[in-house]
Amino acid sequence: MTTVSSQVLAERAGTTAAQVRKDLSLFGTFGTRGIGYAVPPLVNHLREILGLSRSWRVVLVGAGRIGSALFEYPTFRERGFHIISILDRDPGKIGRDWGGVRIQSVDEMEGVVQGTGVEIGLLAVPASEAQVVLDRLVGCGVRGVLNLAPVRLHAPEPVVVHDLDPTLELETLSFALRTRE
Amino acid sequence: MTTVSSQVLAERAGTTAAQVRKDLSLFGTFGTRGIGYAVPPLVNHLREILGLSRSWRVVLVGAGRIGSALFEYPTFRERGFHIISILDRDPGKIGRDWGGVRIQSVDEMEGVVQGTGVEIGLLAVPASEAQVVLDRLVGCGVRGVLNLAPVRLHAPEPVVVHDLDPTLELETLSFALRTRE
Repeated sequence: MTTVSSQVLAERAGTTAAQVRKDLSLFGTFGTRGIGYAVPPLVNHLREILGLSRSWRVVLVGAGRIGSALFEYPTFRERGFHIISILDRDPGKIGRDWGGVRIQSVDEMEGVVQGTGVEIGLLAVPASEAQVVLDRLVGCGVRGVLNLAPVRLHAPEPVVVHDLDPTLELETLSFALRTRE
Repeated sequence: MTTVSSQVLAERAGTTAAQVRKDLSLFGTFGTRGIGYAVPPLVNHLREILGLSRSWRVVLVGAGRIGSALFEYPTFRERGFHIISILDRDPGKIGRDWGGVRIQSVDEMEGVVQGTGVEIGLLAVPASEAQVVLDRLVGCGVRGVLNLAPVRLHAPEPVVVHDLDPTLELETLSFALRTRE
């Protein structure tokens, strides 16, 4: 496809053509009335808007089941997210090699992370430890954290914390099912 | 706490008191002006609204790293989500026991799932297989699916599919970081 209409984009995204046009207009003038959007520049614009025109260095804290599942996620690297450090507190895991990245002790976080350009942290530690680890990540210069622990965390502005909680997703799903009964 | 104000709820939830009152008013009349909400009935109402006053039977398809991480999620069971079947296609995994649930062959899905009251599916299979597995789950009576595969799926009404895509979460995070630069 060389051009795409707001209608087609809306169908793909599960929204309305008017909403697509409104959303994109917030970022400037794309598209031509009656013709649509030229695809290659639209892709570039969207990548720029989403911060995907660059790559990001990521530290993973927690090399348990959830950390391991995250590390294996097939699309992180191709979207520009590079896990360059893995930290854990388990002596049985420290020193292991995951795809060329050696697991290091979480006690060494400051020495490992500071000055490496890491800006994003993946937090896959038990809920009871998550806030302490988050505070230390922020001290190391991390600006954004994806939190997998089922606990609400607090970080100073302008640090951004997003929660990824499968239980909350299941609750949202059960709410949707409930309303259709 | 026996009562809670919309202001306190708003602070906990990261929104405004007006929004809390507006949202709750959609579901009926709770709360007393100047006093707030009585906590026990509010909790019961919220659990009812969210479909959490009952338990849900869940099938997990895919016993790889992601499926295993999901299965171990500490809060599923306490929120009423019970994984009663696990399916995989790997002969090396079929027959294993995870916390009292025996992994069965995905080929046997229809015999295993139909008639058990399973309404929710957790889809942790490769993207290339996700649509086929989803279609079969729907055929077995599953009404809601949490999809962990990085692919957009289609299901007939009124089946609900929610995507849980860590890559998308990272992209949302990088967008937030980008806008703060």
